[in-house]
Amino acid sequence: MDQEEEPQVESKYAADISSITEAHTRIKPHIHKTPILSSETINSFVGRSLFFKCECFQKGGAFKFRGACNAILSLPEDQASRGVVTHSSGNHAAAVSLAAKLRGVPTYIIIPKTAPKCKVGNVIRYGGQVIWSEPSMQSREGIANKVQQETGAVLIHPYNDGRIISGQGTISLELLDQVPQLDTIVVPISGGGLISGVALAAKAINPNIRVLAAEPCGADDAARSKAAGTIVTLPETNTLADGLRAHLGSLTWPVVRDLVEDIITVDDKEIVDAMKLFYEILKVAVEPSGAIGLAAVLSDKFQQNPAWKNCNNIGIIVSGGNVDLGVLWEFFSK
Amino acid sequence: MDQEEEPQVESKYAADISSITEAHTRIKPHIHKTPILSSETINSFVGRSLFFKCECFQKGGAFKFRGACNAILSLPEDQASRGVVTHSSGNHAAAVSLAAKLRGVPTYIIIPKTAPKCKVGNVIRYGGQVIWSEPSMQSREGIANKVQQETGAVLIHPYNDGRIISGQGTISLELLDQVPQLDTIVVPISGGGLISGVALAAKAINPNIRVLAAEPCGADDAARSKAAGTIVTLPETNTLADGLRAHLGSLTWPVVRDLVEDIITVDDKEIVDAMKLFYEILKVAVEPSGAIGLAAVLSDKFQQNPAWKNCNNIGIIVSGGNVDLGVLWEFFSK
Repeated sequence: MDQEEEPQVESKYAADISSITEAHTRIKPHIHKTPILSSETINSFVGRSLFFKCECFQKGGAFKFRGACNAILSLPEDQASRGVVTHSSGNHAAAVSLAAKLRGVPTYIIIPKTAPKCKVGNVIRYGGQVIWSEPSMQSREGIANKVQQETGAVLIHPYNDGRIISGQGTISLELLDQVPQLDTIVVPISGGGLISGVALAAKAINPNIRVLAAEPCGADDAARSKAAGTIVTLPETNTLADGLRAHLGSLTWPVVRDLVEDIITVDDKEIVDAMKLFYEILKVAVEPSGAIGLAAVLSDKFQQNPAWKNCNNIGIIVSGGNVDLGVLWEFFSK
Repeated sequence: MDQEEEPQVESKYAADISSITEAHTRIKPHIHKTPILSSETINSFVGRSLFFKCECFQKGGAFKFRGACNAILSLPEDQASRGVVTHSSGNHAAAVSLAAKLRGVPTYIIIPKTAPKCKVGNVIRYGGQVIWSEPSMQSREGIANKVQQETGAVLIHPYNDGRIISGQGTISLELLDQVPQLDTIVVPISGGGLISGVALAAKAINPNIRVLAAEPCGADDAARSKAAGTIVTLPETNTLADGLRAHLGSLTWPVVRDLVEDIITVDDKEIVDAMKLFYEILKVAVEPSGAIGLAAVLSDKFQQNPAWKNCNNIGIIVSGGNVDLGVLWEFFSK
C-alpha cells in the first residue's frame, strides 16, 4: 500500500506536470490506456483532423477513474482505512467505488435520485454503498458532510482536489504521446477537474497548444465565469448533459481563467446530433457530456471564428460513455 | 496505381502468410489499425482474459475494407478501369465502394432489399451505385453476373477470392502483435473469408494457437459442413445476424476444414445478450454478427467443454458495428 504524502506542488496551481507524472506512475498499472479513434467522414464535415481520445473506454466508462484512483491510492493508510465518501452525478461515484475496491476500503457514495440508471448500476457493481440525495449541489454536499462526520471517512471531492486534477491530467500525457501533432484540445467543462489537469499537462509539454472548453448553454457557468473574471454559479441548470451541471471550484477556476483560451457553448440539439455521429460513424456509445467536444467543433461558433481557423489537428476528449440505451433512443427519435 | 499481378500463393490454400503480409503492405496506408479493448467485468463472467479486436472501428464500420482494399488495389489497371461489381448484405458493399473510390473506378453494388439502412447508407456515402436484389444468394449472384456481362466490370466476390482472404488475414498480423500471449481466437463465420485469413495468418505465426468459429444456430451451414466433411448449404436461414447468412465457398472450405478446431453455434437471444454487454460495459456499438464471438465464449457449449478449459487468453474478432439504433433498441426491449 502506498504510504507517500501527497506530492508537493511547486506551481501556483493545485497540480503541475510533476504531480501529473507522479499520478501517472501511480495509476498506470490500474487504468486503461484508452485508444484514439478518427474518421475521415467526420473530418470531411469540419475540414480538420479530429482525434477522439476515448475515455468512454476507461474503467467505469469515464475518465473519472484516473483521478479517483490517484486520490485513493495516495491516501495515507490511517485515513484510507476509515473509508472514503463522495457525491457525484454518477461517473465519479463509480470511479471512487472501483478505486476503493482496489484498495480494499469502505465507500459511501451520495448520488442524486435523478442519476442515469447505468451510472448507479456501475456504483453497485463495484461495491459502492449508495446514499440517495436530491439533485442540487447543496443536498449532495450536505449529506456528504454528515456522512463524513459520522464515519470519519475521507471526502474525495469530484474535482476540487489536487490529486483528482493530477489524475485527470494523465490523459494529456497519453494523448500527446499518441498524437504529437495536436495543436488544439477540446475538453468538456463542468467542475473543471478534467480540463484543469488536461490543460496543465498539455501546456507543460507544448506551451503553444490551445485548450478550449465545451459547455452546455443550459449550464454555462464556466463561460459566464470567464466573462466576469470570477466564479459565477447558476441557481439552476437545464441540459441533458447530466455530467456537466457542476460549477467551478477554488482550485479549478484559476487554471480555467489562465490556461483555457475560450469556452464554446452548445445547445442540447447540437449535443444529440454529435451523439448520433458517435454512434453511427464511430460506433461508440457516448453520453451527452462525452459528445460535447465534437458538438463544439461542429458548431458555427467554432467553425466561423477566425481565431480557430488554424486549429487543424484537434484532440477531442470523449469523457464518458454511460448512457441508458432507452434514453439514447428517446433522444434520437425526437 | 498498383500494377502488380496477384501474388503467387505457394500453399495449398488460396492465401498464405506471404500473400497476407503483402496485402498488409498494400493496404496499411489506407486502413485503421483497430484497437484492442478489454473489460475486467466481462473477464469475471467467463474466468478468462478476453481481448476484443474492434473491427467495428475499421473504415466502413467492418473488417470488410481490408479484403476489398487489397483486392481492388491489386487489380491490373485495364481491369480496374472497367469498374468493379459485387453483391453483399451490406458491409462488403460499403467496403468495395470505399476502395473503388480510393482507386477512382466505377462500382456496381448489388444489395438485398432487406439490408440494414445504415449499411446501405454507407454504400451511398462512399459513392457506390446501388442495384437492389432479393435476399437470396441466387438473386444476388444472378444480378451480379448480368451486370458483369453488360459492363465488363470485375467481380469482387465477398469471400471466395484469395485477395479478399489475404486482406482479412491482416487482422491476425495486428492482433498477434498487439496481444502476443493469445492462445485462442474466436471468429464469426459466414462465407469463411474472415476466418480463413485469420486462421492462415495466426497459425503461420503460432501453430499452437486455436481458431474457433462462432455461428448462429439459424444459419449453421458451417457447423454442418464440418460434421459432414463437405460443404453443406441450407435452403434458408433464420437469424438476426444479417451478416452471417452466406455459405462456405470452394476456397474457404478447405481452410475451415483443416484449421478451424470447432464451430460454436449460439441462438439469437445469446447474440442479443452479448450485444447488450458490448453496449453497456464496453461502450461499443456492434451489429449482431460482431457480437457473436462474445456470445460463443459466454455460452455453456464453450464454458463447459473440457477441450477449451485451457483457453485463457482469447482474442475475439468484433467484425462490425453497423446496426440501426432503432433495431438495437427493439432487440434490447424485447
